[in-house]
Amino acid sequence: MNAEDRADHFIGRLDAAAAAVEQKLDALLAPSTLKGEIERPARLLEAIRYATLGGGKRLRPFLVIESAALFGLSGEGPLRAGCALEMVHCYSLVHDDLPAMDDDDLRRGRPTAHKAFDEATAILAGDALLTYAFDVLADPATHPDAAVRANLVLALARAAGLGGMVGGQALDLAAESAQKPLNQQEILTLQAMKTGALLRFAVDAGAILGAADQRQAATLTRYGAALGAAFQVADDILDAEGDAAALGKRAGKDAERGKATLVGLLGLEAAKARRDALVEEAIAALEETGLGDATATLAEAARFVALRNS
Amino acid sequence: MNAEDRADHFIGRLDAAAAAVEQKLDALLAPSTLKGEIERPARLLEAIRYATLGGGKRLRPFLVIESAALFGLSGEGPLRAGCALEMVHCYSLVHDDLPAMDDDDLRRGRPTAHKAFDEATAILAGDALLTYAFDVLADPATHPDAAVRANLVLALARAAGLGGMVGGQALDLAAESAQKPLNQQEILTLQAMKTGALLRFAVDAGAILGAADQRQAATLTRYGAALGAAFQVADDILDAEGDAAALGKRAGKDAERGKATLVGLLGLEAAKARRDALVEEAIAALEETGLGDATATLAEAARFVALRNS
Repeated sequence: MNAEDRADHFIGRLDAAAAAVEQKLDALLAPSTLKGEIERPARLLEAIRYATLGGGKRLRPFLVIESAALFGLSGEGPLRAGCALEMVHCYSLVHDDLPAMDDDDLRRGRPTAHKAFDEATAILAGDALLTYAFDVLADPATHPDAAVRANLVLALARAAGLGGMVGGQALDLAAESAQKPLNQQEILTLQAMKTGALLRFAVDAGAILGAADQRQAATLTRYGAALGAAFQVADDILDAEGDAAALGKRAGKDAERGKATLVGLLGLEAAKARRDALVEEAIAALEETGLGDATATLAEAARFVALRNS
Repeated sequence: MNAEDRADHFIGRLDAAAAAVEQKLDALLAPSTLKGEIERPARLLEAIRYATLGGGKRLRPFLVIESAALFGLSGEGPLRAGCALEMVHCYSLVHDDLPAMDDDDLRRGRPTAHKAFDEATAILAGDALLTYAFDVLADPATHPDAAVRANLVLALARAAGLGGMVGGQALDLAAESAQKPLNQQEILTLQAMKTGALLRFAVDAGAILGAADQRQAATLTRYGAALGAAFQVADDILDAEGDAAALGKRAGKDAERGKATLVGLLGLEAAKARRDALVEEAIAALEETGLGDATATLAEAARFVALRNS
């Protein structure tokens, strides 16, 4: 395939995965699935569905599904693990958008959860989504082997917690109110935690589900780390020169807030060079897995992440 | 033993467990334990430790430890599971105290987390604690059998989520702004979710860790449900007639807010009669386990929960 066909083929797979993820999330969050002794709090469930359904490229679940496929595993397990990861991603957006945090009114072109509902409901919706993600992972429907399920829980908790996403958000908030701007190493650490940890988990989850050997799993983790870093530089570049309509949020907000980004520190051209180098690094890691052509979709994912326009 | 000696013996055990839990929580939340590629966000960790350490009777971990002991299991496993549960309890207090939720300034006689730190830090501290609880449960240090660990994760996620604690908090907030006061059944459902689910999980966790047979596990769950209901009526009674100094927060707040409580609905005397009946129900369930004298401490726990003054 030439580059254009390759990209088209990739978009086809990404869209198909997104449709499957949307359907599964809808089912996991259906009132009839969430059965129990009583009727669920309707408004809270509505807010959870609002924050989770009907949007996004579903890149993280796609990476779980494609990574698991490298090891011959498809179907319910990777789909459920991908949905659990997407729930954590969505919860983090809901909490990050809160007035006490980034105070955003718009997300994916729609009012943020606390605007569409109210702050208390948004806080609880995030809490419930985070909690439900672990429910989904620990459920035997995700994998028959309890050791796989326990490992998924452990890996997600570490990626999402104090040493990962939540810690990164705390560093980000601290940087905004600090006197001294972050240096390059501090920005890279912050981004590796805040955005990178969940993207790394996506490919790690595929390796855990597919019982990858240790060497292959470690190589995939390197791919995930490079992809995550590329994703974040691309995000900074998009914020600096992006189109508000495509982004579904205002562009230029990072600079306005004095937020530490690589674009701000290195300039636009150096940031783009770094992004391209990270894509090459991600693809080189894939080649080292020895899995050959099977990794073509993940290679395309690295290119896509770097060059996306929203 | 007579009733007084029994109560003294119980308090001794409760205090010893609380000391062990405090020490283990301190170790689990030590900067050196939470090692990773980078230094953790110091202020966030400080807020997490503030919200978790140095307070509380540690009733929930105590129930995990005593329930597991019924099945001959002691040591690291029940202690870690108890600490994970306590982290979820502490996170829920931090989020419930937020201005958008119950808007409380005081907790256990100290400023609430968002007062001592700030709102963003309090939200993230709660998120990190909830996430870390699942990390602790899924870690092989909690139990060598992965199926036990996965079951603990599943049970805690269900107790803490939409169908449990978070759902109960949503119902509580909805009730405060509703036109029509809750009826008795609605109050009982709300309380079984908001407070009861975690207390039920405590004894369920003991049964999961100790590989209890299904009949014994089900009987213990009934004990946990009765104990949880007794706990909540006792709470309502304390709020109505309690002493602010002992409570570490203002008394009479429920009535002020028009919060739905059994005391408000039934009156103080009927609420006390209900509380006492629930204690008897809890003790009757213990007798049905066929474990005899081994259940004496849990029986005392039911009496303690009902008659505590803070």
